[in-house]
Amino acid sequence: MKLTDQKIRAIKWENDFLYLLDQRLLPNQEVYVQFTSSRNVADAIRDMVVRGAPAIGITAAYAVVLSAQSHRDLPNWREAVLDDIEILQNSRPTAVNLAWALTRMRKRLLAEMTDPVNDLLQEAQTIHQEDVTANYHMAKAGAAFLVPGSRVLTHCNTGALATGGYGTALGVIRRAWEKGKLERVYADETRPWLQGSRLTAWELQQEGIPTTLICEGAAASLMRQQRVDWVIVGADRIVANGDVANKIGTYSLAVLARQHGVKFMVVAPNSTVDMTIGKGSDIPIEFRSAEELIKIGEIQVGVTNIDAWNPAFDITPSELIDCIVTETAVIECPNRERMRATFR
Amino acid sequence: MKLTDQKIRAIKWENDFLYLLDQRLLPNQEVYVQFTSSRNVADAIRDMVVRGAPAIGITAAYAVVLSAQSHRDLPNWREAVLDDIEILQNSRPTAVNLAWALTRMRKRLLAEMTDPVNDLLQEAQTIHQEDVTANYHMAKAGAAFLVPGSRVLTHCNTGALATGGYGTALGVIRRAWEKGKLERVYADETRPWLQGSRLTAWELQQEGIPTTLICEGAAASLMRQQRVDWVIVGADRIVANGDVANKIGTYSLAVLARQHGVKFMVVAPNSTVDMTIGKGSDIPIEFRSAEELIKIGEIQVGVTNIDAWNPAFDITPSELIDCIVTETAVIECPNRERMRATFR
Repeated sequence: MKLTDQKIRAIKWENDFLYLLDQRLLPNQEVYVQFTSSRNVADAIRDMVVRGAPAIGITAAYAVVLSAQSHRDLPNWREAVLDDIEILQNSRPTAVNLAWALTRMRKRLLAEMTDPVNDLLQEAQTIHQEDVTANYHMAKAGAAFLVPGSRVLTHCNTGALATGGYGTALGVIRRAWEKGKLERVYADETRPWLQGSRLTAWELQQEGIPTTLICEGAAASLMRQQRVDWVIVGADRIVANGDVANKIGTYSLAVLARQHGVKFMVVAPNSTVDMTIGKGSDIPIEFRSAEELIKIGEIQVGVTNIDAWNPAFDITPSELIDCIVTETAVIECPNRERMRATFR
Repeated sequence: MKLTDQKIRAIKWENDFLYLLDQRLLPNQEVYVQFTSSRNVADAIRDMVVRGAPAIGITAAYAVVLSAQSHRDLPNWREAVLDDIEILQNSRPTAVNLAWALTRMRKRLLAEMTDPVNDLLQEAQTIHQEDVTANYHMAKAGAAFLVPGSRVLTHCNTGALATGGYGTALGVIRRAWEKGKLERVYADETRPWLQGSRLTAWELQQEGIPTTLICEGAAASLMRQQRVDWVIVGADRIVANGDVANKIGTYSLAVLARQHGVKFMVVAPNSTVDMTIGKGSDIPIEFRSAEELIKIGEIQVGVTNIDAWNPAFDITPSELIDCIVTETAVIECPNRERMRATFR
């Protein structure tokens, strides 16, 4: 489970610079973009060169190293790095892993250091490595819920591309496949960004896991025809009462799952848990442009100058969730009391 | 409400030939394709040059005229036309309006005729005109349910492009707008064919009706935030127990609407009603290729060689429908008894 053992690596630190696999170009092109400045990384997070809550946290941690590297000869270099951390922090609002990783990097920055750039790099690599390790733990715990022959519906991409490696919800799916428990994965294409058809299908295809693509509108029929046993998704933020922010469309699946007797699992590392927020409706939700709906790449697919309501995330209330799986805990039927008992 | 008064005309008979506005190219290009042969029209229906249950019925009726025109000098011309009717019949399986219109044309064909081509043309034009008239009746009856300030979510395209003119569900929305009852339309983009962002948004924009585009995954959040009062959709087939086949994604909206206290209206002409089928699960559902999900125009958006589950339609059970509106009837809380009482 070393970083370099991962087959798919969305985030690499090599020769003193950060490299991101440009997820906007997948699956048509596999292009790594080199980053030398923290500000460019902040733009890349906003523009979704990299996406997925854990992946943007790890990326931001490496960006802090780039910032220290650029500014180390300045007398007030720490201030400059803190400014860059602030900019990184504001690149995307909903996923809390970003704030979590930056808090860790800030703490390291303000502590005693012998070789600042190297010490910060070590911290970023630790965050990265811990994420991969966490994913293996979650995968094991989550897959334990599945029985042989399970059919799983997943949404968005929660795999190696969305994390340090292996994946959260997709890690559970990978593990279930390895253990012979998985009959088929249904992947929601996940509009508007098509993470399902571009990224999840791409990851699953590489491992030969039987995958069927559907559009979001087909999920209800699929469930009604009893072709799904579990919906398994990731999370961008899990708050004190067990409500979950995740990719737009998740809440819809949760309502439909409950209606059709399908189980619903959320898989995310502890760094996704934010006990400072009481309930889902208080989570800041990022709204993105109408362009995302009416253009695909450079192609205009819909009418121009149309208003769109394009929240990137939605809130799934804890009542609709059968279990939340993190690297240290499994919370069945999550609620405020169970969350508090686990995460204090 | 004459055919030629319609602002948007998807289907035109001019100078002895049929012209279809190529809906695959909208909204980027407005191109009319000329048809001189019935077989080419059957291909065009299959390839969705024209779509929408009432529109394909009307189109097929005109195709029968083309067939008669091509074959009128043959001794066995009626046989040749019957063969073409058979091919048209098989072009798309789910919408029953196609079968309904062809049954009417077949009946006319087999009856006494003085001038076959002209007599058949008259029948096709009558079907077309009746559809427009029906739409105005439905619009009035459906809009009567709405109160001022209504926010409506619609799915797919049910407007002038999907019918002889004015529209079914979109006819209700047009009428509500004309009567000052409509605050806003939310249009589901409607994957995979994007009828919402390409066609519905295009129609509504031309009339200045306030329209907001959403992706299917956002509908549940929109309802949870109490931004929708009614879901109003069309139908491809309504069967004896009140179950409705309509564009994939409709059933999902019906479940979500019920869950969130949003009303659900189905608007379709009597020609959509098929009392020979007892329940929704017996309606033949058309499955389309994976290509529709992973390619947009010529652009590859997802991975290649992926399996997809791509039903073009789903079934909404009558229990989730608040009212069905046709040109002659309004059936509230539809069920087998009420359907039988209305349509015998």
